[in-house]
Amino acid sequence: MTAVLKIDCQYVKQLIDVQADADQRRLPIQKVGIKDLTYPVIFTDKEGSQQTRATCNLYVSLSADQRGTHMSRFISLMNENNQDLSVDNFRQLPETVAKILDADSSRIEIDFTYFKWKNAPVSGIRSAMDYHVYLAGDYADGKTDIQVKVEVPATSLCPCSKKISDFGAHNQRSLITITVQSSQTMMIEEIIEIAEKNASAEVYGLVKREDEKYLTEHAYQNPKFVEDMVRDIALCLQNDERITGFVVETENFESIHNHSAYAMIDQLNSSR
Amino acid sequence: MTAVLKIDCQYVKQLIDVQADADQRRLPIQKVGIKDLTYPVIFTDKEGSQQTRATCNLYVSLSADQRGTHMSRFISLMNENNQDLSVDNFRQLPETVAKILDADSSRIEIDFTYFKWKNAPVSGIRSAMDYHVYLAGDYADGKTDIQVKVEVPATSLCPCSKKISDFGAHNQRSLITITVQSSQTMMIEEIIEIAEKNASAEVYGLVKREDEKYLTEHAYQNPKFVEDMVRDIALCLQNDERITGFVVETENFESIHNHSAYAMIDQLNSSR
Amino acid sequence: MTAVLKIDCQYVKQLIDVQADADQRRLPIQKVGIKDLTYPVIFTDKEGSQQTRATCNLYVSLSADQRGTHMSRFISLMNENNQDLSVDNFRQLPETVAKILDADSSRIEIDFTYFKWKNAPVSGIRSAMDYHVYLAGDYADGKTDIQVKVEVPATSLCPCSKKISDFGAHNQRSLITITVQSSQTMMIEEIIEIAEKNASAEVYGLVKREDEKYLTEHAYQNPKFVEDMVRDIALCLQNDERITGFVVETENFESIHNHSAYAMIDQLNSSR
Amino acid sequence: MTAVLKIDCQYVKQLIDVQADADQRRLPIQKVGIKDLTYPVIFTDKEGSQQTRATCNLYVSLSADQRGTHMSRFISLMNENNQDLSVDNFRQLPETVAKILDADSSRIEIDFTYFKWKNAPVSGIRSAMDYHVYLAGDYADGKTDIQVKVEVPATSLCPCSKKISDFGAHNQRSLITITVQSSQTMMIEEIIEIAEKNASAEVYGLVKREDEKYLTEHAYQNPKFVEDMVRDIALCLQNDERITGFVVETENFESIHNHSAYAMIDQLNSSR
Repeated sequence: MTAVLKIDCQYVKQLIDVQADADQRRLPIQKVGIKDLTYPVIFTDKEGSQQTRATCNLYVSLSADQRGTHMSRFISLMNENNQDLSVDNFRQLPETVAKILDADSSRIEIDFTYFKWKNAPVSGIRSAMDYHVYLAGDYADGKTDIQVKVEVPATSLCPCSKKISDFGAHNQRSLITITVQSSQTMMIEEIIEIAEKNASAEVYGLVKREDEKYLTEHAYQNPKFVEDMVRDIALCLQNDERITGFVVETENFESIHNHSAYAMIDQLNSSR
Repeated sequence: MTAVLKIDCQYVKQLIDVQADADQRRLPIQKVGIKDLTYPVIFTDKEGSQQTRATCNLYVSLSADQRGTHMSRFISLMNENNQDLSVDNFRQLPETVAKILDADSSRIEIDFTYFKWKNAPVSGIRSAMDYHVYLAGDYADGKTDIQVKVEVPATSLCPCSKKISDFGAHNQRSLITITVQSSQTMMIEEIIEIAEKNASAEVYGLVKREDEKYLTEHAYQNPKFVEDMVRDIALCLQNDERITGFVVETENFESIHNHSAYAMIDQLNSSR
Repeated sequence: MTAVLKIDCQYVKQLIDVQADADQRRLPIQKVGIKDLTYPVIFTDKEGSQQTRATCNLYVSLSADQRGTHMSRFISLMNENNQDLSVDNFRQLPETVAKILDADSSRIEIDFTYFKWKNAPVSGIRSAMDYHVYLAGDYADGKTDIQVKVEVPATSLCPCSKKISDFGAHNQRSLITITVQSSQTMMIEEIIEIAEKNASAEVYGLVKREDEKYLTEHAYQNPKFVEDMVRDIALCLQNDERITGFVVETENFESIHNHSAYAMIDQLNSSR
Repeated sequence: MTAVLKIDCQYVKQLIDVQADADQRRLPIQKVGIKDLTYPVIFTDKEGSQQTRATCNLYVSLSADQRGTHMSRFISLMNENNQDLSVDNFRQLPETVAKILDADSSRIEIDFTYFKWKNAPVSGIRSAMDYHVYLAGDYADGKTDIQVKVEVPATSLCPCSKKISDFGAHNQRSLITITVQSSQTMMIEEIIEIAEKNASAEVYGLVKREDEKYLTEHAYQNPKFVEDMVRDIALCLQNDERITGFVVETENFESIHNHSAYAMIDQLNSSR
């Protein structure tokens, strides 16, 4: 911007703070803040640190007597915390943002693509797989509640189609979504593993013919409905003592339809 | 499909019903069904009937002892009900789908674009405006709970920017979302009207210069934060005796940022 | 909008026409207009008329000496033509919009979901299938050039996977896209049929078990790479004398990967 | 995947190469490959290196006598080149992929979010801004043609609205897209700067009140139509001797409409 700056900055510092006006409508606001902020973050998990592009929503509550919140403070918070994000570090953010904005409660949502390097099942050849991760944190009444959600692409093969057909079975890409609340931190990769081992087959970035043969036959030998996948995964999650609540969803992008089949088991604590 | 049909249909009718298998995992499923079905519907509101393209999600619960649901029945339900949809008729669907699938509970979500013809504020010239409508219905314990959500595009003008600047004020397209639960049916258009009259200005498909002058000046005289818009709308909704619960959200696609400002007031009944 | 209208409309009619200013930058503009207008249209094809929601882009060229175009005239054009759209009627629109805006050239793009009722292959049960249609028209040098593009979901089954595996074969939802230029009007449904009969199998909204058996076995007996599908479709299109140019694309949402396989044959006339 | 691996790998290496079959349809394919691969890349520009998530499409041509291409080689190429991407390094990729796949021609498209740290115009406070970058490269007849496209969010303020209104002027977020072909490499940041200095005002992640006052007044003093922005930017691009061809587009997400205003100047060399 080349225009000469003609503003008297002393004066500017005294600019009226309209947001601090008292409000007469007597209506508290549950969430106010910024949405769809695209920001660089460095996220650390089992495989080490990776820089990625995150989409961030940051909200606080606003009491009935205040007209507006101070939006710029949310970005300042991101500036101070985007270099060192992990499931553990995220846990502090909801309380921090509430304090910075003098709010009773807050909610933070950060989502990004997490890359994991996988070895193909037979050839062992290596490639990156992309998983979408959502971190959500709520702070209220002095307590913080964290949810970690991971979307895991996989293969599903239809048991009905296999059983009624003389040969073949329709199969398709499937998206497994696991949301966990836990007493101790779970790694993103632990969640991914639970999803992948309960699908008809895993998906990979790079496969050789020997892998393709293996995956095709493995899927055919492990037919699963969306209902089967959410149940098998729920059993695994119930057996992990760290997990205090979870939601499992599976969506099949059906190869014989132009719509999805979907199933969901919700065992989140009612304390939410 | 040109292949000669070699299937013995008598035999086919006796194809094994894999979905009806007993399930040993003792895990009930809260939601199972179809997602992202694109279907034609005829929707009737204040302005009469309009055919449109809907996206439909239809789910039922599945008891612990049953392996799978019967996906094709959801489409049959849509076939029987897509010609005569309205907020009123939608009210019956969740119970119907639960009965058709022998389920204890169900959830149906149908969303589509609703068109309303508007007259520009000064010239009176007519054009269509598009609003996104979401109908959601939950059936459980013999009771049905309906939510109607409408997204209304509008103009917002920033009170802070107006106050601190010697001239001008940043403004932008804003999306107001109102979700209502009501004891009596509310027309989609009634909800739209509440949103539009509480924005800095309405938006139109077609305006003449005299309309543009009016809208520019009207917005400048009605500066509102996202917080102001959700509060002003909440006051209107509280005054409507038919409404038993609501959520109001406003998202400003800020013209001085590449992210949104957002506010939300949630006064839905806890009975949900 | 409740504010009292204080504008003198006589005066308003004389509001300065800023767009008509002479421009000193000596730069013609190839396309200027409106984008992403959501508008109701009634489209007529083989099955009769259906109302739908269209997304419309309307552009004209602007000569070097004119500062701006008159955006509101595009909406007026839509108001006059949205009730009676077909591939045939669309053919007139580019020239019309150029004339209305005193422009040398123009481009119009209208896309929408087209519904066709299909009978399942064995049970004959009926349901709607959604296809996305794009109409694009260019007017320049007194000539109009029309392209009709249709996206057709289908099933593809991998020949390599079938051949190397002892049982099964990976398959997936596939999207076939056909773009045609033709000397005589082709029905949307004719284009859909060419795509569907050349896939491994068709997809349907509603199938019964006997249909699922048929589709599974039919796909297994008709394995096709993306390369095979675009070639088989290209052969069909070459044999239709009405067609003067085409593009065929196939995208497989691979069930063993989290990315797509894609192929394209481009035989559009270079006259474009 | 816990299943015991029972495949004889010696045998597997001899698995039939179905893709290498001779093809009888005598139809060359212009583009075949992989689409929508999400992959981690490290991209280097003026500000140094940043890791990001890219979406990649990689295609080659296929001669009439070959049945299929070898999809896995595209991923291998990404594995070898994703750690050191820049506009300069990208220039080699199209020829490399053509050679790896024995193809006459190729096309590579890689798009990702590029972050630049900006100082607010008055307070100087620092925050990240996100820009979308598309790299496209075509190799044919022994020559490589590269296009670099950058999307730059900005503010636009309507000259007509300002002129006809007694106070205020509608403004909105705008997206400026610049595509360049150049004889010497241009930095992404150079392209961003050209876009930003020709908008009504720049946008920032983080602004203080003094910045908001400045941006509001600056935009009011620099009203521009979409037509003005593409022309002003085109003049800048014409004056840069490195640039051999360009396209400039501007899309205003109009604050008084629910659709966009759009303009485009195309001065790409016809050699393309």
